[in-house]
Amino acid sequence: MAGKFELMNAKGTRDFLPAEAIDRQRIIDTLKSIFEKYGYSPLETPAIERRDVLSAKFAGGAEIMKEVFGVVDQGGRDLALRYDLTVPLSKVVGMNPTLPKPFKRYQIQPVWRDGPIKLGRYREFMQCDVDVVGTKSMLADAEILAIASEAFKALGFEAVIKVNNRKLLDGLLDSVGINENKMDAILSIDKLEKSGAEEVKKELKEKGFASKEIESLLKIFAVRGNNAEILEKAEKTVKSEEGKEGAKELGELLEYSALMGFEIRIDLSLARGLEYYTGPVFEVFLKDSKISSSVAGGGRYDRMIGMFMGGGEFPATGISFGVEPIFEAMNAGKDDTKDSKAKTVTQVLVIPIQTLKEAIKVAGEFRAEGIKTEIDLTGRGISSNLNYANSLRIPYVVFVGKKELAEKKVKLRDMRSGKEKMLKAGEVKKEIGV
Amino acid sequence: MAGKFELMNAKGTRDFLPAEAIDRQRIIDTLKSIFEKYGYSPLETPAIERRDVLSAKFAGGAEIMKEVFGVVDQGGRDLALRYDLTVPLSKVVGMNPTLPKPFKRYQIQPVWRDGPIKLGRYREFMQCDVDVVGTKSMLADAEILAIASEAFKALGFEAVIKVNNRKLLDGLLDSVGINENKMDAILSIDKLEKSGAEEVKKELKEKGFASKEIESLLKIFAVRGNNAEILEKAEKTVKSEEGKEGAKELGELLEYSALMGFEIRIDLSLARGLEYYTGPVFEVFLKDSKISSSVAGGGRYDRMIGMFMGGGEFPATGISFGVEPIFEAMNAGKDDTKDSKAKTVTQVLVIPIQTLKEAIKVAGEFRAEGIKTEIDLTGRGISSNLNYANSLRIPYVVFVGKKELAEKKVKLRDMRSGKEKMLKAGEVKKEIGV
Repeated sequence: MAGKFELMNAKGTRDFLPAEAIDRQRIIDTLKSIFEKYGYSPLETPAIERRDVLSAKFAGGAEIMKEVFGVVDQGGRDLALRYDLTVPLSKVVGMNPTLPKPFKRYQIQPVWRDGPIKLGRYREFMQCDVDVVGTKSMLADAEILAIASEAFKALGFEAVIKVNNRKLLDGLLDSVGINENKMDAILSIDKLEKSGAEEVKKELKEKGFASKEIESLLKIFAVRGNNAEILEKAEKTVKSEEGKEGAKELGELLEYSALMGFEIRIDLSLARGLEYYTGPVFEVFLKDSKISSSVAGGGRYDRMIGMFMGGGEFPATGISFGVEPIFEAMNAGKDDTKDSKAKTVTQVLVIPIQTLKEAIKVAGEFRAEGIKTEIDLTGRGISSNLNYANSLRIPYVVFVGKKELAEKKVKLRDMRSGKEKMLKAGEVKKEIGV
Repeated sequence: MAGKFELMNAKGTRDFLPAEAIDRQRIIDTLKSIFEKYGYSPLETPAIERRDVLSAKFAGGAEIMKEVFGVVDQGGRDLALRYDLTVPLSKVVGMNPTLPKPFKRYQIQPVWRDGPIKLGRYREFMQCDVDVVGTKSMLADAEILAIASEAFKALGFEAVIKVNNRKLLDGLLDSVGINENKMDAILSIDKLEKSGAEEVKKELKEKGFASKEIESLLKIFAVRGNNAEILEKAEKTVKSEEGKEGAKELGELLEYSALMGFEIRIDLSLARGLEYYTGPVFEVFLKDSKISSSVAGGGRYDRMIGMFMGGGEFPATGISFGVEPIFEAMNAGKDDTKDSKAKTVTQVLVIPIQTLKEAIKVAGEFRAEGIKTEIDLTGRGISSNLNYANSLRIPYVVFVGKKELAEKKVKLRDMRSGKEKMLKAGEVKKEIGV
């Protein structure tokens, strides 16, 4: 039977062995605890959705549907795997019109995209979204960013939160004479930080925008200064009603973020590729990290959910955290062979030395005290057990031998230092600092 | 755009709104904390696997492949959604031959089965497995059952853990003269508890077993008594080497469970439908519950992983918890309209009364203290905010008004009793007992 097939994963998918899964779990638990502190509750939606729901035109467009994994059931239904968590949220709000508003939810589930595989890009990856539906107030956007700020602090990073406003960006385009194909321009502008001014100029020219318009536009983005200075300059430049509204929203966001005690940085060229954004957009980067890509991003999308509700505006804003880039940032520069990171949750391995009955009791006591405890399940010798503890980097072992039992004690060994100590079982917890 | 499609879920799938998602999360967190206390670490595997890996003959057989959801990628690869967590575990062990053993892992992820929809049966559901790979000792099986016992206690249930042994069952079949089509017999026997003796007799007759064999067999299962009495009787009945080995294993399991301080109940007719079990099998039921189906089940499968490794024995044992039946058992008999169960994680809603700046500070203080806090994000009036708090069953609201601020206090209202109290913001945490 064996050998008839090759034992391998589907392209673009991965297994997470305990060492990685423990870290991923820690990231997710940290994010969850902060989401909940701000009064956001969990939502779960199925991986499989009807293709017509996922492909609703306003939900991301034809581009994204090219990357959807199709699923067919035995009834011949045309189904697909979700590619984001925003469309399922819109579906849930649309299907449950009586949900009290604002609807504050977080959702942490995998999504699938059948796109090209690049470094750090997979076909199945975890998304971690927090959104609030049903209020137009900039206080909601500020709260979302407060969560981001606090989350990255809790994860041990210093985050740089860049913000812009799509209405303002739209008005700035107007002000230099770009009134058509704005989305085309926005997609190029979004690359300014990454590709530089020359590259963006070239691209905009190729897209058919006039040189004069392009020069004026890039001059606006070249403005340096603090938030107030940049915003003031933009307010003066922009002429349209909507553009002024965008500047006002950005001003409110600045004010609320100061009240809440975190910093944001206005970046007029920040655009984000998706068409559905209608107001503030945000992107989060890590200071002093080897990971230069964004680790979270989002914005306000006041029209998308309304479409699911039968039309009209239905305000919403939110942010999506990338578990994968955060995980990479945590491990960047670490050398696993030198690293002492555990490959197990186990804190103590109990090794019976012809004392199985008593060792079972000791392991039970440790567990009752909340120590994550293994006991040898194989009946093997001491050195095999020590090899096992070393290979998993279990920090402590406890020997239960006749000699120890005679003294009503156990022998604790610190696996890093090799130091041993005779202790009562009840003293182990304090000694290892669990 | 709206109305072009019907907003509905794919057949057999569900959304979990916060009220349910919070409960599900609590179940999962409880299970995880106990798994980890016994030194089991998390593993994550992709939802999408190669069909040839999933359909490996020994992994569940042709029956289960009928229920697999097929997925096709753009490269035309023949993929499928996982239908259990045991095959992915076997794959991981096979692909990572240097994993230290025993490999103790838990895995909590959804699985998909395109089967018939019945009450309480869905096409996407959460599985929650804990397994140990690489030891033949009954101590491992006992540990798995200790976890089950402790988990259900922690979830607020009294569990009945039924155990049997496939080698023993096999030997009992031999002893009454059933030497062929044993799996056929086992599948019928497994229904004894649910369908009764008459039904099982009928089914066995239809399958072609002789009346005399059937009568002798049912007489064995009719033996009543305590574990020791049932085991003694079975030991006397069974003649084959393997059957005696099974009885010995059952005896060891009894001994270890007593040492670990939990009860098991031998049920000689417990079989479990899957072919791959090789030793102990277990099934867990809830005492005094409206849920009569099992809430967890598993057993030892010493040969399955070896097949993935290129043949040979590769011992493993484990149990799978059903999040769905546990969730149903928790909610059985509860009337949601009368129930006071919260529909949010939020503990306090802060309502500013023309005091937004100060209210933001108060909300920030609460969050810093770990209180799950919302602040009105809409700017609406007091009564709308109270309605919102009532509809989500938020237990407390805090009013921040000019009058309160003048006294350097806030007004806390208990939403259940309606009682109000003036307090300093820093006193709220203690008052609400968070």
